[in-house]
Amino acid sequence: MKKWKKLDSKIAFDNKWFKVRQDKVKLPDGKIIDDYYVWLEGDLSLIVPVTKGKQIILVKQYKHASGQIMIEYPAGYVDEGETPEQAAKRELLEETGFSSSKFTLLGKLTNNPTKTVGNIYLYLAEDVEEVAKKGEVHSEDTEEIELLILPPKEVLKMVESGEIWVTSSVAATYLASKKISFT
Amino acid sequence: MKKWKKLDSKIAFDNKWFKVRQDKVKLPDGKIIDDYYVWLEGDLSLIVPVTKGKQIILVKQYKHASGQIMIEYPAGYVDEGETPEQAAKRELLEETGFSSSKFTLLGKLTNNPTKTVGNIYLYLAEDVEEVAKKGEVHSEDTEEIELLILPPKEVLKMVESGEIWVTSSVAATYLASKKISFT
Repeated sequence: MKKWKKLDSKIAFDNKWFKVRQDKVKLPDGKIIDDYYVWLEGDLSLIVPVTKGKQIILVKQYKHASGQIMIEYPAGYVDEGETPEQAAKRELLEETGFSSSKFTLLGKLTNNPTKTVGNIYLYLAEDVEEVAKKGEVHSEDTEEIELLILPPKEVLKMVESGEIWVTSSVAATYLASKKISFT
Repeated sequence: MKKWKKLDSKIAFDNKWFKVRQDKVKLPDGKIIDDYYVWLEGDLSLIVPVTKGKQIILVKQYKHASGQIMIEYPAGYVDEGETPEQAAKRELLEETGFSSSKFTLLGKLTNNPTKTVGNIYLYLAEDVEEVAKKGEVHSEDTEEIELLILPPKEVLKMVESGEIWVTSSVAATYLASKKISFT
């Protein structure tokens, strides 16, 4: 099985918050495609935070593309110059006020390898503790966040019932269940 | 918790294969954002196909955004005028040559509710049988596909080792494991 050959590449839509790349590609059968578009989303870190009391922290936020209030694990983009683990620690603190020194990489996933450039780094953060009031460290002004602190079996029920329905949070629950008990 | 108010909306990047919408929104605190971009990806259907002999079918393909050969469940976009289940049946046949009359909805997920408009409908297709040679029904000329037909426990190993690492396929394995045995 052969990869495609990239003949040319340019940024077709260039905004600070949204960039699309246009590639000219040659397929293994010789066919040329002039306008293959990919979204340069960038990398994300997602955290499954578990307290010393074995409760899981979720965040509830309005998400504008879906137009709905969503329940997910804390997550955010990896900034330039940051490692995925540094981003995970920063995002956990910013979104929840909780912190931990015990981060474990659960896996590296990607949402859409056909059309989107960017990986999602999933972390388990154990023994998380509240170190700041959420409002004090919060940096993004579009985010109004409510915390849910729940027993793992409640989180599992929410995944199975479809109340938690973002692919990365469902996948993270599954990968975390290999490390910690959800029952 | 309040939703944002959409004040205005237009298509900012309009290509047959990639559309981006620009919204002017008002946040609950009164702040106005003029340029909130979302990708109008559209809906996808994904199928976990299980043969009568309890083997699982996966597809191996080059995916250009990641630049890698990926192993995933068969999946594809829901065409206009199609239901997600019709798309699931069509995509399964086109990508694998297999078909089934026993489709069960495992769940509705979404990849990125912050920036992407579109849902992923996950189906379990049981008792799938080969009804056509894959090449005969195949419609998309950018797709070179190799089939993998594996015992469920091999699929589980590939998810846990990171060989299967697309969020929707990881999440689908998890939701399917509530209906069929992966051990």
